[in-house]
Amino acid sequence: MENASVHTPAFDMVLFGGTGDLVMRKLLPSLYQAHAAKLLNEQGRLLALGRRDMDRAAYLALVEKNSRIHIKEAYSDADWQSFTDRIDYLQLDAATAAHYPALAAKLQHEGERVTVCYLATAPDLFEGICDNLAAVGLNHERVRVVLEKPLGHDLASSHDINQAVARHFQEQQLYRIDHYLGKESVQNLLSIRFANALFEPLWRREWIHDVQITIAEDLGVGTRGDFYDNTGALRDMVQNHLLQLLCIVAMEPPANLGADAVRDEKLKVLKALRPFTEQDVAGKTVRAQYKAGAVGGQPVVAYLQEQGIPAGSQTETFVAIKAEIDNWRWAGVPFFLRTGKRMQERVAEIVINFRDVPHHLFPSPLGLNTANRLVIRLQPEESIRLYFLAKEPGDTQRLQPVHLNLDFHESFKARRADAYERLLLDVIRGKLALFMRRDELVEAWRWVEPIMNNWARTTTPPKQYTAGTWGPAASSALLSRDGISWHEEC
Amino acid sequence: MENASVHTPAFDMVLFGGTGDLVMRKLLPSLYQAHAAKLLNEQGRLLALGRRDMDRAAYLALVEKNSRIHIKEAYSDADWQSFTDRIDYLQLDAATAAHYPALAAKLQHEGERVTVCYLATAPDLFEGICDNLAAVGLNHERVRVVLEKPLGHDLASSHDINQAVARHFQEQQLYRIDHYLGKESVQNLLSIRFANALFEPLWRREWIHDVQITIAEDLGVGTRGDFYDNTGALRDMVQNHLLQLLCIVAMEPPANLGADAVRDEKLKVLKALRPFTEQDVAGKTVRAQYKAGAVGGQPVVAYLQEQGIPAGSQTETFVAIKAEIDNWRWAGVPFFLRTGKRMQERVAEIVINFRDVPHHLFPSPLGLNTANRLVIRLQPEESIRLYFLAKEPGDTQRLQPVHLNLDFHESFKARRADAYERLLLDVIRGKLALFMRRDELVEAWRWVEPIMNNWARTTTPPKQYTAGTWGPAASSALLSRDGISWHEEC
Repeated sequence: MENASVHTPAFDMVLFGGTGDLVMRKLLPSLYQAHAAKLLNEQGRLLALGRRDMDRAAYLALVEKNSRIHIKEAYSDADWQSFTDRIDYLQLDAATAAHYPALAAKLQHEGERVTVCYLATAPDLFEGICDNLAAVGLNHERVRVVLEKPLGHDLASSHDINQAVARHFQEQQLYRIDHYLGKESVQNLLSIRFANALFEPLWRREWIHDVQITIAEDLGVGTRGDFYDNTGALRDMVQNHLLQLLCIVAMEPPANLGADAVRDEKLKVLKALRPFTEQDVAGKTVRAQYKAGAVGGQPVVAYLQEQGIPAGSQTETFVAIKAEIDNWRWAGVPFFLRTGKRMQERVAEIVINFRDVPHHLFPSPLGLNTANRLVIRLQPEESIRLYFLAKEPGDTQRLQPVHLNLDFHESFKARRADAYERLLLDVIRGKLALFMRRDELVEAWRWVEPIMNNWARTTTPPKQYTAGTWGPAASSALLSRDGISWHEEC
Repeated sequence: MENASVHTPAFDMVLFGGTGDLVMRKLLPSLYQAHAAKLLNEQGRLLALGRRDMDRAAYLALVEKNSRIHIKEAYSDADWQSFTDRIDYLQLDAATAAHYPALAAKLQHEGERVTVCYLATAPDLFEGICDNLAAVGLNHERVRVVLEKPLGHDLASSHDINQAVARHFQEQQLYRIDHYLGKESVQNLLSIRFANALFEPLWRREWIHDVQITIAEDLGVGTRGDFYDNTGALRDMVQNHLLQLLCIVAMEPPANLGADAVRDEKLKVLKALRPFTEQDVAGKTVRAQYKAGAVGGQPVVAYLQEQGIPAGSQTETFVAIKAEIDNWRWAGVPFFLRTGKRMQERVAEIVINFRDVPHHLFPSPLGLNTANRLVIRLQPEESIRLYFLAKEPGDTQRLQPVHLNLDFHESFKARRADAYERLLLDVIRGKLALFMRRDELVEAWRWVEPIMNNWARTTTPPKQYTAGTWGPAASSALLSRDGISWHEEC
C-alpha cells in the first residue's frame, strides 16, 4: 500500500463552518478514516472555526457528541484519540476582518506547509472570507480553497462568486467540490472506459441507444425546506451532479489524467450540449412536485405541507430532462437525466443502453429492446452490472436476460474510501482532476438557465407525483417517445 | 416449459453397438434424462442391437448394471422403470445382411414414425450397415443415421465412408455427431455473439488480438492404446472438435439458425483457413508425446509404456497449432489450437483475447498486455467469464484485473441438458444445425492433411512433455513469438 508520509504533505486544514452539519457528519469522519488508514501526514492539523466562544476542549466534546457517531468503520479508541489530537478550535466570525489576524497567527509554522481552507458555509459568505483571508496574506500559493455548492443561483450570481474569489486566488488554488466525482464507481467508470479496449469501441452512437442518469432520494426536504424552496431540484442536483456524471460518461479520452486534460474534455461535452429553446423545454423536460404518499410503508406529507414551504410554491422536487450532445460521437443519442426527492428508493446510477442487434436470429418472446445494458451504481451500494441475453439452458433456443456482476466489495480486499475522504486527500495533495473548473461551472449554468427561465415564466404549474413513486407519468412518457423506459421499470 | 408431445415426434431409435461403451455410458443415460424431463414422445422406443444372443430381460439386466450408474441427476425408480419400458433388444450381427429383415420387421408400426439409426460402432462397419439397411428398405426418408467419429483416417478414407453412406442416404438424413457442439456453453457462444449487440462489433481483427482454444485431458490413453496409436491427437481432436469450435468462434452471422445457413457459414471459415506449407508445419505446429510424470499427485507412466503402444511409436498425444483465417474479419489474428492427453487439468475452453488500449492513461505496473479477455469454459464446468481492468479502490490509480462471472448453474433455474441429450433430441426432431455436413468434413480433412503428411514424412521425433504439465516448452514458444501466453499461464 501507499505510504502516507511519502504522498501527503504536511498541512493545515481550516474548516470554516466548523460546528456545522457538513463538518460534523462528513468531513471529520472522512478525515478520521484517512487518519486511521495512516494516509495523513503526521504534521497534518485541523483547525475548526466557529462563531461560538468555546475552547478546544468544548469543541472536542461537540465533536465527540456529533461527529464520532458518523464513523462507519475502522473505529478504535486509540485512533480516535490520536485523530482528535490533530484538532484545534478558533473562535472566528467569518465576516469580521478583525478576527483573521488571529487565524493567520495560528497558521504560522516552521517549514513549508499546505493550507487548505474548506468553506463549509453558506455561499454568501465566500466573498467576505476570501477578502479577509487575502487581507492577512492567506492567499499565497500554498493556500487552497475548497468551495461547496451551491456556487450561485444562476449564471450571473455564479459569475459574481467566482469573480470575487478570483480577485485573490488563482484558478489552480480552487477546489470546487462535487462529491459524486469522488465515488469509487465514478472513478471506475473512467478506468472501465479508458483502461480497457472492451468498451470504448462501443462507446458511441453506433452502438449506444441512450444513456440514463438517475439520482433519486427517498427523503423529503426535511428541515431544509427554506433553502430548498429557493433552489429546487434543477439547481440542487442537475446543474452540478447530474451534468458532471454526464461529462464522465460522454467525454472523449483525455491525453492523460492530469487535471486540465480531464477538465478540458469535460468542458467540451458541456459546450456540445444542445441549448434548449423555449419549445424544447416544454417537450424535453419534466418538472414535478411530490404530493402526499408513502415511503417505505410510512405515510409522508406533500411538499407543500413540509416545514418552511410557502403556500402555492411551484418549486420542483423532481426533474427529468432529455439532453442531447451535438458532437460526432453522440449525435442522436439521448441522455436522460432524472432526479427527485421522495422517490421510491434512494438510488444513484448510470445506465448505458446498447442498441439492439441489427437482425434477430433467436426468438425473443419478451420483446426485449434494450437487452444489452451496463449499469453503474453509485448508491446505495457501488457496483457494475453488465446485462445481456443468453440462451436458456436445455432443450430450447429461448433467450433470457442475464447479467455479469462486479461487486467492488467482493472483488477487492482493499479498503474503499468514502467520496469525501478521497476528495479531501486530493485537495491536500493538490490534485485538481476531480474538481470543477470555473469554465465548466459557467457552461453548466449556461445550459440550465433557459430551463430555469422558462419555468420561472410559465403559468403551467409543476406536475404532481405521489411521494414514494418514481415520479409523474410524464417522466415515463419522456422516454416512451423514444420507445424505451427507465431502467428500474423494466 | 416446452411440452414434449408437441415437439418430439414418435420415434424408434436403433442403437447399433447396443452393448458397447458409448450406449451404456452416454446414450442411455442421456435418453433417460430426456425421458425424466418428459421430453420424449410417449411413442418413443429404443431398440438395442448386439451380436450377443440374449433376451430383453438379459439386456435390461446389463443396462441396470452398466448404464444406470452413469445417471447423474433426476434419478427415480419410477422414471427408470418407465424408461426401461421403452427399451427392447434384438440380436443382430451388423455385417450379416440376413439379420436385417428381422430388424425391419421390428420397426413395422401403424402410422408415421421417425427411425433413428445410431451407428455406435467402429467406422469400418458403416458401409456394410448402410448397405444392409437399404436392402430391407430402411433408408426411406424418415430414417436418420447418426455417425460417430472417427469418420475416416484421412481425406481419402473419409471420402470412402461418406461415399458409401451417400449411396443409400441423402445428406439431410445424416447426423455426423460432434458432442462439443451440444454443450450449453457452445450454444451460448452463439447467443452471446448473435443475440447481443455488445460483442459482435468487437468480434473482429480490429479488437481481437488472438483466440485460444484448448481441450486438455488429464487422462492418458487408458485401454484404448491400440486405437489411439493409430490415430493421434491431430485426428482424434483437432480435425473435428477443435476445428468445429474454431468455426463457431469465427463464423459470420448466418441469415437464420437453420441447419444449412449455419453450416454454410462454418464451411466458409474452414475454406478460409490458410493451408499449411511444409515450412509452416515446422514453424506453426507442435507435436509432442508425454513421458512419465504425475497427475493429481499420482505417478503415471510414459505414453510409450502404456498398454498396446508399440515400441518407438511417434504418435502425438499433444498438438498445438497456430491457425490463421484468411478473410476480411480475421486477417492477422492467430487462432491457437491445443489439445493433449495427460495434461495438468481436464479443461476445455475458448479464450478471446482483446487488443490492448491504444494509449495508456492509467499506470499498469503489472504489464498486463491481454487484460481484456472473454473465457468460455466448456468443461469441467460450463461458464463465461469476462476479464477487464478496474481501478483498485481507495486512494490510488492503480489498476487490477477483475472479472465478471456468468455461471450458468446459478443464473438459470432451468435444468441443463447434457451434450448428448441435446443432440439426440435434435436428431429425433430432425434439426441438423449442430451436426457436421459432408463438405465441412472434407474441408477439415483437407486442412489437417498437410500436417499429417509432414509428420508422417519427418524424421524429427515428437517433442516430449512430462505427464501432468501443460505440454512441451515449444507450446509456450509458439505463442510467445506473438508476445502472448496461454490463458492458464497468466
